[in-house]
Amino acid sequence: MKIAIIGCGVVGSSWALVFARAGHDLAIHDHSEAAAAAAVAFVAAADPALAARCRVATSLADALAGADYVQESAPERLPIKQALYREMDALLSPATIVGSSTSGFPASSFTEGLDNAARCLVAHPINPPHLIPLVELIPAPWTAPETLAFTGDLMRDLGQSPITLTREINGFVVNRLQSALLGEAFRLVEDGICTPSEVDAAVADGLGLRWAFMGPFATIDLNAANGVAEYCANLGPMYYGLAKEQADPREWGPDLVASVEAKMRAQVPAADLPQRRQWRDRFLAAIVAAKREITKDVGA
Amino acid sequence: MKIAIIGCGVVGSSWALVFARAGHDLAIHDHSEAAAAAAVAFVAAADPALAARCRVATSLADALAGADYVQESAPERLPIKQALYREMDALLSPATIVGSSTSGFPASSFTEGLDNAARCLVAHPINPPHLIPLVELIPAPWTAPETLAFTGDLMRDLGQSPITLTREINGFVVNRLQSALLGEAFRLVEDGICTPSEVDAAVADGLGLRWAFMGPFATIDLNAANGVAEYCANLGPMYYGLAKEQADPREWGPDLVASVEAKMRAQVPAADLPQRRQWRDRFLAAIVAAKREITKDVGA
Repeated sequence: MKIAIIGCGVVGSSWALVFARAGHDLAIHDHSEAAAAAAVAFVAAADPALAARCRVATSLADALAGADYVQESAPERLPIKQALYREMDALLSPATIVGSSTSGFPASSFTEGLDNAARCLVAHPINPPHLIPLVELIPAPWTAPETLAFTGDLMRDLGQSPITLTREINGFVVNRLQSALLGEAFRLVEDGICTPSEVDAAVADGLGLRWAFMGPFATIDLNAANGVAEYCANLGPMYYGLAKEQADPREWGPDLVASVEAKMRAQVPAADLPQRRQWRDRFLAAIVAAKREITKDVGA
Repeated sequence: MKIAIIGCGVVGSSWALVFARAGHDLAIHDHSEAAAAAAVAFVAAADPALAARCRVATSLADALAGADYVQESAPERLPIKQALYREMDALLSPATIVGSSTSGFPASSFTEGLDNAARCLVAHPINPPHLIPLVELIPAPWTAPETLAFTGDLMRDLGQSPITLTREINGFVVNRLQSALLGEAFRLVEDGICTPSEVDAAVADGLGLRWAFMGPFATIDLNAANGVAEYCANLGPMYYGLAKEQADPREWGPDLVASVEAKMRAQVPAADLPQRRQWRDRFLAAIVAAKREITKDVGA
């Protein structure tokens, strides 16, 4: 398939690797030609043989010409997305599907009124998509069902794990789940129950070990002899009580944020953050590889 | 150290393995002598050499005699806990510390007025503790600081990962975090945004891969160039907006639960649940082992 990668920051570069390693031919474009070249270099660094599948397009028109699918990862500013989609609209063939990597803007906010609006959707990865398979597909109200079906099939073919939301919603699914957890994390720290690093331990040494291979429904489904309905009958009232205590939305105020920042900097000094990100990426890659091997062994 | 294991269900048996493999001598007691014997068999199945460190106590008094630490994992019913702690109170030496595995009851609800109340606390594991290191330590208002310090040191010596809450709070930390995530999970399904299996994928193929080795604060701290304060400045308003949308505590009503139950049973028929739990336990053990190896390689 012919794929156009538009926007070559961290997300676009990672997407380029996803498509290239699945055997597709890539036309790569960025406002900055150096960024496009860097994306090719990123793919080549992962596997030199893949570089032959990547070319830096000479223009947006060149990138889109003949593309079956466009993965757009332009900067997260609405006016930039709107201008880019207007520009693309004049160039797209009526056979091309366009997925946006945006985490923050529904497709309706930048595709309304476009000729190709029915073939645009949000295809939001968790960064970096070459390691994390989940992709959220979110239709605008005018996105065609065929657009969703095509993109879902494509993502599965790539080895990604797509989920398809029925409609646009703030934060989509992933950031809404993260929001719920973060909100309680900040609440516990603000209320002096425990420290940020203790919340982190509760997840990394506790809840997260299972969440790396089974989600919250699958988890509770196995935690009662007869499944999730029994679990809810036993523990639903307890969780409803907690939900009522957690129903006070809080802004993360300056004192709270300063306190968390100070504690995090005591763990990782500012100068060490780039190195810590390398640690994270190595750990993540190794966990993903281990999960793949375990799945081969015990099943999914 | 001499350890008494009181209560030998799934949690108590797993605790027995935790203490035995760390080199401690165990006196194991359950209302049912068969359950106590089964706990010894569980330890022996993991490592036959450890069985020599375990003995089935002939009575509660026998189990507690000379114990340095008691891990109590009796059934989760408050009258049972209250009666057990009253009975233990008459038998405990003033040097013995008692940690309760309870997930639901604060220590103040079953240790008030006891002679040994200052040496009792909650030491709540995530099941099963022989695989999942996190332990929440929660003091009653009258728990002595030395009790917390002793139990924290003991847990670290065992290879567990203790966190110490400053005070009692409903759900402690782990179930409050799980509650926040589950609440949003059910909300998304109830509102028809996606299916339970899609929520599960969002976690297991997405968020959970990082949460297996870094918690929510560590995650966001690395997701802005200069750390968590910058992240909060950029995204705090977005999360506050989501928090307001998520501030409607909902009971998990019968229709919603029936719908989730039907979808989960379509994935795993009721008859296959025991086998699916074996899959979970194998996967969990393998993930924990992989994480240990990765940590050796890239650091914690």
